[in-house]
Amino acid sequence: MSGKHIFDLMSTLWPICRSITGDGVRETLNKIQSFLPGLKVHEVPTGTKCFDWEIPKEWNIKDAYILNPNGEKIIDFNVSNLHVVNYSIPVNKEIDLEDLQSHLHSIKNQPDAIPYVTSYYKENWGFCISHNQRERLRKGKYKVVIDSELKNGHLTYGELIIKGKSKKEVFISTYICHPSMANNELSGPCLTTFLTRYIEKMNPKYTYRIIFVPETIGSIFYLSKNLKILQENILAGFNINCVGDNNNWSFLPSKNGNLYVDRLTRRILKKRGVNYKEYSFLERGSDERQYCSPGIDLPVCSIMRSKYNTFEEYHTSHDNLEFVSEDGLQGAFEIYCNLIDEIERDIIPFCKIMAEPMMSKRGLRPTIGKRNSANSTKIFMDFLIFADGKNNLKEISKLINCDLEEAVKILDTLKKHDLIDYISK
Amino acid sequence: MSGKHIFDLMSTLWPICRSITGDGVRETLNKIQSFLPGLKVHEVPTGTKCFDWEIPKEWNIKDAYILNPNGEKIIDFNVSNLHVVNYSIPVNKEIDLEDLQSHLHSIKNQPDAIPYVTSYYKENWGFCISHNQRERLRKGKYKVVIDSELKNGHLTYGELIIKGKSKKEVFISTYICHPSMANNELSGPCLTTFLTRYIEKMNPKYTYRIIFVPETIGSIFYLSKNLKILQENILAGFNINCVGDNNNWSFLPSKNGNLYVDRLTRRILKKRGVNYKEYSFLERGSDERQYCSPGIDLPVCSIMRSKYNTFEEYHTSHDNLEFVSEDGLQGAFEIYCNLIDEIERDIIPFCKIMAEPMMSKRGLRPTIGKRNSANSTKIFMDFLIFADGKNNLKEISKLINCDLEEAVKILDTLKKHDLIDYISK
Amino acid sequence: MSGKHIFDLMSTLWPICRSITGDGVRETLNKIQSFLPGLKVHEVPTGTKCFDWEIPKEWNIKDAYILNPNGEKIIDFNVSNLHVVNYSIPVNKEIDLEDLQSHLHSIKNQPDAIPYVTSYYKENWGFCISHNQRERLRKGKYKVVIDSELKNGHLTYGELIIKGKSKKEVFISTYICHPSMANNELSGPCLTTFLTRYIEKMNPKYTYRIIFVPETIGSIFYLSKNLKILQENILAGFNINCVGDNNNWSFLPSKNGNLYVDRLTRRILKKRGVNYKEYSFLERGSDERQYCSPGIDLPVCSIMRSKYNTFEEYHTSHDNLEFVSEDGLQGAFEIYCNLIDEIERDIIPFCKIMAEPMMSKRGLRPTIGKRNSANSTKIFMDFLIFADGKNNLKEISKLINCDLEEAVKILDTLKKHDLIDYISK
Repeated sequence: MSGKHIFDLMSTLWPICRSITGDGVRETLNKIQSFLPGLKVHEVPTGTKCFDWEIPKEWNIKDAYILNPNGEKIIDFNVSNLHVVNYSIPVNKEIDLEDLQSHLHSIKNQPDAIPYVTSYYKENWGFCISHNQRERLRKGKYKVVIDSELKNGHLTYGELIIKGKSKKEVFISTYICHPSMANNELSGPCLTTFLTRYIEKMNPKYTYRIIFVPETIGSIFYLSKNLKILQENILAGFNINCVGDNNNWSFLPSKNGNLYVDRLTRRILKKRGVNYKEYSFLERGSDERQYCSPGIDLPVCSIMRSKYNTFEEYHTSHDNLEFVSEDGLQGAFEIYCNLIDEIERDIIPFCKIMAEPMMSKRGLRPTIGKRNSANSTKIFMDFLIFADGKNNLKEISKLINCDLEEAVKILDTLKKHDLIDYISK
Repeated sequence: MSGKHIFDLMSTLWPICRSITGDGVRETLNKIQSFLPGLKVHEVPTGTKCFDWEIPKEWNIKDAYILNPNGEKIIDFNVSNLHVVNYSIPVNKEIDLEDLQSHLHSIKNQPDAIPYVTSYYKENWGFCISHNQRERLRKGKYKVVIDSELKNGHLTYGELIIKGKSKKEVFISTYICHPSMANNELSGPCLTTFLTRYIEKMNPKYTYRIIFVPETIGSIFYLSKNLKILQENILAGFNINCVGDNNNWSFLPSKNGNLYVDRLTRRILKKRGVNYKEYSFLERGSDERQYCSPGIDLPVCSIMRSKYNTFEEYHTSHDNLEFVSEDGLQGAFEIYCNLIDEIERDIIPFCKIMAEPMMSKRGLRPTIGKRNSANSTKIFMDFLIFADGKNNLKEISKLINCDLEEAVKILDTLKKHDLIDYISK
Repeated sequence: MSGKHIFDLMSTLWPICRSITGDGVRETLNKIQSFLPGLKVHEVPTGTKCFDWEIPKEWNIKDAYILNPNGEKIIDFNVSNLHVVNYSIPVNKEIDLEDLQSHLHSIKNQPDAIPYVTSYYKENWGFCISHNQRERLRKGKYKVVIDSELKNGHLTYGELIIKGKSKKEVFISTYICHPSMANNELSGPCLTTFLTRYIEKMNPKYTYRIIFVPETIGSIFYLSKNLKILQENILAGFNINCVGDNNNWSFLPSKNGNLYVDRLTRRILKKRGVNYKEYSFLERGSDERQYCSPGIDLPVCSIMRSKYNTFEEYHTSHDNLEFVSEDGLQGAFEIYCNLIDEIERDIIPFCKIMAEPMMSKRGLRPTIGKRNSANSTKIFMDFLIFADGKNNLKEISKLINCDLEEAVKILDTLKKHDLIDYISK
């Protein structure tokens, strides 16, 4: 069962301290490569401009802890990498509790959770701690140590392109920048890993472009580098994240809300009888923020289990491996497999030939012409005349009054005869 | 009465054995030229590529017959040119009835009809025979003779362009590739011949492009050679065929179904009080298959009497001169004349001038300006402001609250003053 | 009160004999320049071509009168410049009453009104007279004198561009070619003068292009010279005229009828609770005839008091300073100020950046990222994603579920950070 494999990979990647740059990302991609040998790892130097942004310095961390006035280690990065504010600069000093407080982060309402806090673009340092523990801190001198490094380096991301028979692409994006949290985010790249293996095995018609990027800065860089080809070729895209728990189903459509990929997704969710909540695009919060922005306008949506920012465990130490489950992952995996399967079937065909193709030379029409001898050919001709890039297969089937199965057969035949251009080779 | 003239021309052309190439087409065009001296005959060499197709070898036939074991001529090409499978290669041999059977074509359900059969793109030979006669054949040796020739040559088609005052074109296409059959097809080119004469006499505003082509391969070649000019200029087009019987009225709209030409045609049919059946574009079967295909998208429709493939006589020896009638032809001729008349009146005007034209220098506005002195000019200005290429004359008349007759007068005046660009010279 | 200032300026300009060319226009513009020192006066030589038109000869007049057979001055240009047909060629001769009659213009139904008559494009001469006076004329020799000059010269117009922060423009056009008449037309340029002062004081976001042109020939010339820049930049435009009486409110929308400027104007009229008549574009009669013509299609509408051609005094000596009022002018002035104010607030923003802007470097997002830390940023991101040039501010506010005030604040913030491109500097 894929749910179990995904969960196991999550467990493997769990301890790694990821961030938007650094060795945690590399190690994560490296472990994913053992499942996806075709995954290509790209490094983008610090300072590279991309639209309004610039690749930041690279951050790495070896250790971090706090010793209390008694010299006891009360906070230990090795116990939870959430304890250190992500992108903290090095620090090593004694500090009064009062001064320490301004560098501590906790959540009053969730007193036993360690929050997830970052400071990517402003040099700072800090520790994250459960509110219960924070309340127990006594006055005195604390030793704070963050053995980190922030210097020119690279942003790292993974890209895997599965060449299909068509240049038209399905785009899958997931992110690999969060330290030890499960639903948001390890579920995303881990499910994507096994989804990629699923696609690799299927010898797909479409080309699949799958990227594992640090959220925001990674997708923005990727867009800045590949915008034209993405806009030309992407037929449908998904931003995969929050796919691990077994509580809810959530759908975040594209900005347009009624593109092919939106209709496709609703169709699949309905077909599976899934009870899901459709969010407004205003509720977006992940890389669709980039993919659907003005002038970029890619057809990207997300199907999630419990959507980011809607569950209490989100961005805390409680979003752990117990919050997700093999069943939850399996369900999401199946939906995405269904979507891929459906996309593979459910295509927008383009007739490759001007005017009617000559069907008899392809054996698609009897060479002897007599009354009604073209009857068997008619459905092909009907299909071709609506294969104008404005209708997907199902819509064509409705237009020409045949069922989808028959339309698939027609398509296969026309494909075989190189009359439909979604097959590029 | 034109119905009689059309019928007489059909009678003249009746005996000729036409095909998609060969001397039958030339002889047909030649006889039509005696009515239309302006008809230009084009020859396209065998092997010429056009989109997915290639001009085939030219086929000609002198004679064909079958002698029964008694030496009696039981099948004679000279009695009916339907008896030989169109494009049959030469044959001259004795053959057992059993072997002959696989080269015979008949229709069980219509036992006294000779079917029309072709084999344009696969070398073959055969005879068409009534099922009754076929049933009576006795065992024995039959002598089969087809004195035909299939070799490199040309495809022949006719083209006549009646220059109008405007570059905008009305396109009329008909086909001249069927041997002796009346409704489908001699009615088409014969009605088109007299319709062309009608247009020639009218000194039309629009340019008329009238082509007599072999069906399918002829229209495809014509499109491949003239696509750009057709797409730029054609305002309305008709594929004329099946216009001879007096039974039904049929309308096959363009693929879009609501273009100017479709609205025009429905309007005329309604105006004449004609009870017609509007077919789905899925029921298409003639050269609109090419003219409306993706990427070509010309505004072409057909008004027919009994539509091809809907009457029992279709593609048999029963589609003969008795199946059609002078009355039937006359009715269709009148509809097409009405359509042409209406197109000539019912135009889509374009204002030729940026900002308002200066009306007083054209005498369209009093040179003395006083209150209400521009009242007579107002309607011209209203017309011009809606002459933006998005509205036809009638729609403009509704937009400016005048009746069509008045709009025609306005148009004439504006035309006279070179303010409307549908008149190019 | 601006109504009084406008009325005073009208009184000052009242005696001047304006026409489409000549010193009357120059003197008018010169007096307006004392209020608008930035007004630039342009001179266009006679014979200059513009679209279908050509700048006519320049016309100037010193005096005109008629002496009756007794040598009494019965018509005096110095009493009313309406007495002479505008653009009359020089004349100085004795003439019988009968011959004189064909050069006289009066209105039978308004026997005490002197009509306004022109003959710009055909050389002619004539006098306008009340019908009562005309009836009293006795047979005999009349001395007619028109001391005018029609020769190569210039057409004169005024243009004032108030540079705003944005290249996007609001366009205001008014005309300065009528002799002594009040509602149509002195109210137009005089209100526009004070509206311009109002705008000059406001340091506007938008660039304002304000022109004082002779009607028709002036606007046509201006279009021919500036079409591209107008089409690129104009967000909203107004043709200001007939804004002086206190009787009615009239709205003439653009040809399209539902552009931003139309919706804006209806909104303001509604907000003020003004009971107005919305005319069809067919009722147009001023320079919107040019601005909205095919291929030009600028977003221009008019808000008027009593619309030209709908009131009896129109184009007669009765359209005098008593027909208009300070209150009437004040009301129209306020509406236009409201429109300008609203335009200044109510903008169509464009996001200047591809993908999401980096908000934290602009202080628009906490540098520390924790759960919900982006909440304050969300509304900016929502705004930016709909700032795609298809929605105005209010529409965006509805799309992102905030009220207009909040949207204005968001806009200001985004403007400050150079994220919205309606501010060009």
